[in-house]
Order: sequence, then C-alpha cells, then structure tokens
Amino acid sequence: MDYGKKALELHKELGGKIKISSKVPLSDKDVLATLYTPGVGAVSRAIADDKSQAWALTGKSNSIAIVSDGTAVLGLGDIGPEAALPVMEGKAVFFAEFACINAYPLCIKSESADDVIDFVRAIAPTFGGINLEDIKAPECFEIEERLKDLGIPVFHDDQDGAAIVTLAALINAAKVTGKNVRDLKVVIMGAGAAATATAWLLLGLEKWTDKRVPNLFFAPPKDVILVDSQGIVTQNRTALSQWKRKLAKVTNREQIRGGLGEALEGADAFIGLSSGGKLDGKLISKMHKRPIVFALANPNPEINPDDAKTAGASVVGTGRSDFPNQINNALVFPGLFRGLLDARATKVTVQVKYAVAETLSSAVVPTKEQILPSVLDKTVHKRVSQAVQKAV
Amino acid sequence: MDYGKKALELHKELGGKIKISSKVPLSDKDVLATLYTPGVGAVSRAIADDKSQAWALTGKSNSIAIVSDGTAVLGLGDIGPEAALPVMEGKAVFFAEFACINAYPLCIKSESADDVIDFVRAIAPTFGGINLEDIKAPECFEIEERLKDLGIPVFHDDQDGAAIVTLAALINAAKVTGKNVRDLKVVIMGAGAAATATAWLLLGLEKWTDKRVPNLFFAPPKDVILVDSQGIVTQNRTALSQWKRKLAKVTNREQIRGGLGEALEGADAFIGLSSGGKLDGKLISKMHKRPIVFALANPNPEINPDDAKTAGASVVGTGRSDFPNQINNALVFPGLFRGLLDARATKVTVQVKYAVAETLSSAVVPTKEQILPSVLDKTVHKRVSQAVQKAV
Repeated sequence: MDYGKKALELHKELGGKIKISSKVPLSDKDVLATLYTPGVGAVSRAIADDKSQAWALTGKSNSIAIVSDGTAVLGLGDIGPEAALPVMEGKAVFFAEFACINAYPLCIKSESADDVIDFVRAIAPTFGGINLEDIKAPECFEIEERLKDLGIPVFHDDQDGAAIVTLAALINAAKVTGKNVRDLKVVIMGAGAAATATAWLLLGLEKWTDKRVPNLFFAPPKDVILVDSQGIVTQNRTALSQWKRKLAKVTNREQIRGGLGEALEGADAFIGLSSGGKLDGKLISKMHKRPIVFALANPNPEINPDDAKTAGASVVGTGRSDFPNQINNALVFPGLFRGLLDARATKVTVQVKYAVAETLSSAVVPTKEQILPSVLDKTVHKRVSQAVQKAV
Repeated sequence: MDYGKKALELHKELGGKIKISSKVPLSDKDVLATLYTPGVGAVSRAIADDKSQAWALTGKSNSIAIVSDGTAVLGLGDIGPEAALPVMEGKAVFFAEFACINAYPLCIKSESADDVIDFVRAIAPTFGGINLEDIKAPECFEIEERLKDLGIPVFHDDQDGAAIVTLAALINAAKVTGKNVRDLKVVIMGAGAAATATAWLLLGLEKWTDKRVPNLFFAPPKDVILVDSQGIVTQNRTALSQWKRKLAKVTNREQIRGGLGEALEGADAFIGLSSGGKLDGKLISKMHKRPIVFALANPNPEINPDDAKTAGASVVGTGRSDFPNQINNALVFPGLFRGLLDARATKVTVQVKYAVAETLSSAVVPTKEQILPSVLDKTVHKRVSQAVQKAV
C-alpha cells in the first residue's frame, strides 16, 4: 500500500492529528467562576505559596513536552521544525492513546545546543517531563548531559528509546536463532544519536564511561563495532568528536579497520541506525550463521526485509509498522513517561532503561516473526510503566 | 459562594483542566502506518519542500501558544510560572470551548524581555498565533513591539484584550447613562499593561504615537487620566519610563496633579485596571452625574459592586463572572484568534482591535445590568471571529 499518498490525504483532511479539549464543559456561570476568575485566583495563590502544589492542581503532573529542532527527522535529516511537526504530532497521538498523557508537540527554531537547552529550561515549569526528539548528534549528547539537573526527567527518545527497544529485540533475536547474547559480535551502521546510545546500552556501560552498570539482566555482547560514513570507528581515526572518541575506546575490541564489509565479516547481528544508509544483501553472506538483521532507518530501511531474507538473514526487523518485527521506540516512550510521571521521577536512570528493555523482551515468547510485542498492545505499555515505577 | 474553595477542590480532582486526544484512534497497523512511520515521512518531506504546507498538513493552522512568564498574574502580581498555570489552562479551556482552537498553556521561566522574545521566536514554527498573557509592564511593551515581525499574529491579551472589551463596555455604559462618549472624562486607575493599552485604544491613537487612527467607529472621550501608585500621570513627573512619558503626552489634557481624588473630580467614568488597588466609595460622590464604575482587577475588584452602587454609581462592571456586567477579555480572545487563524493573518492590526470592540458593543441592546453580551454566549465569539476576518 502507498502509505505516503494515504498519509498526505489523511493529514490534509485532519489538519493536525491531536485535539485539545476541556475536561469540564463551560456550561454556566458557576463553572466559569470555578475554572476561571475569581475561583482560579485561590488556586494560583496556593501554588505561589508552595510551588510543588502545581503537581496536584494543574496538568503538570500529566503533561510532557515533545521538543524537536527538526535537525534529524526520521532518516530524512535536517528538514526543519515545520517538517518535524507531523512526526511529533504522531508521537503525541501515541502518548494520548497508550498512556493518557498530554504531550505537546513543540517544534522549535534553534541554532545551537544552547538554544535547545535554554528553551527546555524555560518551559520546564509547565511539564512533568521532557521528551527530546529528532535532534542531531553530536548536539543531542551535549543537550542531554547539560539537562540532567533539570529536576524533571529528560529523555532523548532517538538515543535511548531506540537503544532500549533494540536491546530488547536483540536479546529475543538471539533466543530464536539459538545464540548467546554474550557471544555476539554486533555491527551497528551509523554513529549518530541512536547508534551511539545503542552501543552504550548493549555494552552495559554508563554512557561516556567505562563503568559497568551493576546487576545487568543480561550478559553484554562480546563486541560492538560502529561503522559511520568514514568507515569503521577506530581509536586511531583522526578528527573524531569527543563523543566518538569515548565510544572508540570501548567498542571494536580488535580495532579492525575498513568499511561495512570488513566489519560484517563473521558478525552475528547487523543493526542499521543510519540516516539513509544502505545495506547490500551480498554483505549478509559474509556474516556468521543465522544472521540477525535489523534495518531500522525510517521511513526507508537500510535493506528491504524481503531482500534481507533472500540474502540469508535468519531474523529481520525494521522500524516500520507495515512489516513484521517492528522495532520502534513507540514501544518505549508511552509507558516510560507514564511510569516516570506516576513516580514523579526527577531523572531517567540507567536502571530505568534496562528495566524497560527487560520488560519488552520478556513480554512475548519470541518467534522469528515476532521478536517483540505489538506497539498496539496496550498491556505492554502498562507493563512498561509499572516496571519504570519500580525501577525509579 | 466560596469559589476559591470550590476551585481548589475541582482543580485537585481534575489535575489539569485540559486533555489532549488523538483525532483518529490508533486501532490497527494501517492507521499506525498512515499517522506515523512510514506514511508520515511523505508528509514531512512535503513540508520540507514547501514550508507553507505545514498550514494544511499539521495542527499549526489551528494551534496557538498561550505564553506567560507569570510576572503579572491576575491582580496577584509576580507569582511565577507554576502559579500562572491554572490561569493559562483556564484560557485554554475558553479557546477549546468557544473557538475549537488547540491552545497550549506554556508558562515559562524567564529573566528578561529578551528571554520571552527568544522563547516566542523559537516556538513560532509550531503555531498559527501567539497569545501573550500576564507578563508585567514595561517588559510586555517591549516584547510586543519586538515581536511584530514574527510572521504570525502576537496578541498581548492583558493589554489589548482588556482594552478592547473595556472600550466596548464604556460605549454601552455611556449609552445607558445618556452620555456622549466624546464628552467623557475617563479616569483609569493603574498604568500597567491593561491600563496603558486601554488609554491608547480609548483615545483612538496608534499605540505610542499621536497619530489618530482613521475611520474610527466612535468619537474618543475628551480626556483620559491615568493614576498609578505615584498619583496622576503628568508630563512633569520625574523618573517616568519611556512608555509612561509617551502616555503622559496624550492624556490628562489639563495636566492636573494629585491623586485619585483629584483625578475623579467631575469624572464620568472610573476604570480600575490596577494590581490590587482600591477605590474608596466616598470618591464616587466627587464624580459627575450618573457615574460609570468599572472595577476590573481580578480576582478582587477595586470596589465591591454593591458598595459602588450604594455610593452612587449608575453602572457598575467587574471582571468576574459572579457579578452582573462582566467586562472580561474572555469576550475577545477566543473569537479574535479564531478569526486570525481562519484569515491566516500575520499580525493584529489596530483595525482588527476596533472591529472587535464594535462587534461587542453592538452585540446587545445594553441595559444597566447588561452592558455586554455574556461570555457564555457562543454566537458572540462567532461574530467576533467574522468581524476579525473582515478587518484583517
């Protein structure tokens, strides 16, 4: 089906996918005087006296901002805030439908990491959490680091949403292909936001450090190799950003050099988290037996799932809902924020991230055609939120 | 009735007055693939190719931001962004109920006019209009001036919403007391956002200039006098801000000095637009015959309406919905923005403001107990929106 055409038609018909309504109809003067002036004055005064009352008396406790500067939208790249809007509205729909959260899509004009940080600090009083979306690397790393002290959780979905769902999918793909996660050689195509965060999460390390996270629920793969537009990420590559330098230290244990072909030699899993990259089917034949292929670029996967199967892939996943094995952060963010809000969490700890991955991987008895639960399965989002509340 | 107590209970029960929902339920994979990936990719690409498509394909054309820094909330003053939130949610309820507009209450932490301006510039791509609320003077004047070129309409409700509805009310109050507007001597208590904008609008002048607006639908009052915490605003007062200096030039024609008592000597109308100011009933007896008293401070009027009547006021209005003659900008902003969005206006011209005032004053056959239509009358908001579309 031509979803693009259908989507254009539906979006034109709707003129925006979300709707804001009043919880109480403005039916008479009494309601007016209670919701608004003079009654609302007492509510404002109560919060002025004790700021924390905003959690009980306003929508703060159930509202989050979806913030994007439109610099890394889907696999389409830096297409600007206006063009990011339909994607963010889509996320708001997920938040509403699966987690009853008021999520405001806010696409902003920004020139720098500073601009995004200033913006998020400014709106923080209104929200119980911030979901960053589609902000390009390396700015997104700095933004996440500098917003850790905001007082409400800040989650960069492209990084950690992608990382969490990919880890869950990889664990189950290993199961159905009869592999041990700890024995895996994993190749990640891309070294942007999602690829970077996925590498750290798979390796079981605190981001940007070589500190092993205690009490992991899985044994990390034996090696992870990243391949970007310049080839395999190695320590001796020149002009590496500080972020890639840190990553180069903990990945690619044998420091092999070359391109995607060299990296995939004997690899167990290919994880495409690129911006518009392509995987040639021929390379799949160089991989270890029963190869796992996740082609997660959106909307165009690095390889068509049928081509990957034909080329020998044993398990194939994409980010799309019109193929089997959808590996999409939509499995993560609704339940994650529901749990964070209900626990009134102040940050997203690494323990929370692993708790979600564990929940997702244990939510199904995996088969080759279903390594993860369906995004449409409402019970999954509920289980995620419960796991988050416990892990906070 | 104790609306404060009732409001606290209702706000606690609701936990936020607005709700975001999806226009289309996420019922199956097909909907998912159309609203979200892969379908949404085509929508994003269409907008990336032509930014103006965001108006047709996203919620931009029906969404506005309600932006406040919480520095001048109701008559409560600088109580902070969290405490401003219930008021902004209340405005969002009006927008939803009376104009089917998605209005996002965004209460921000800000240190200066620059911060607010940067914030509004950043979010502009997401919205079809910006409604500024409860930002204190004089910062609000600079903010409004510097955002005139934003490309979408920016309306500071406390200034011009208050001014428009007050002008409409004054015209009708003159009618029912048998006075000519052109003969009125009007005293405004306050010299903040609302008081300042009201003075300019009553005088029929382009804000900050002595340029008469052409084709006015009414003859401006013969004099307007402002009284702030330092007394009557006169040209020879020291330490006047640039904004008050401009106002001093076009108001108080005889440059009388003194306090509220001196100003009210022989005045036809008192308009309270103060932050917590009080009008002593005794002063009403100094006014001209059949005095008009608008005590518009919220939630606590400058004088209790019954006391004003007892003291001899002929027509009395307040900003509250639990007294007769509610003079509240809620009569203005829903229809105004509906009209601006439908016309895809780029700014709020002075012609638009007068068109709304004219519409409101002609929407009723005024009596002393009803000089303006009810905020709850949905047809009024529709008439306002039509007038705006014509005047844009």
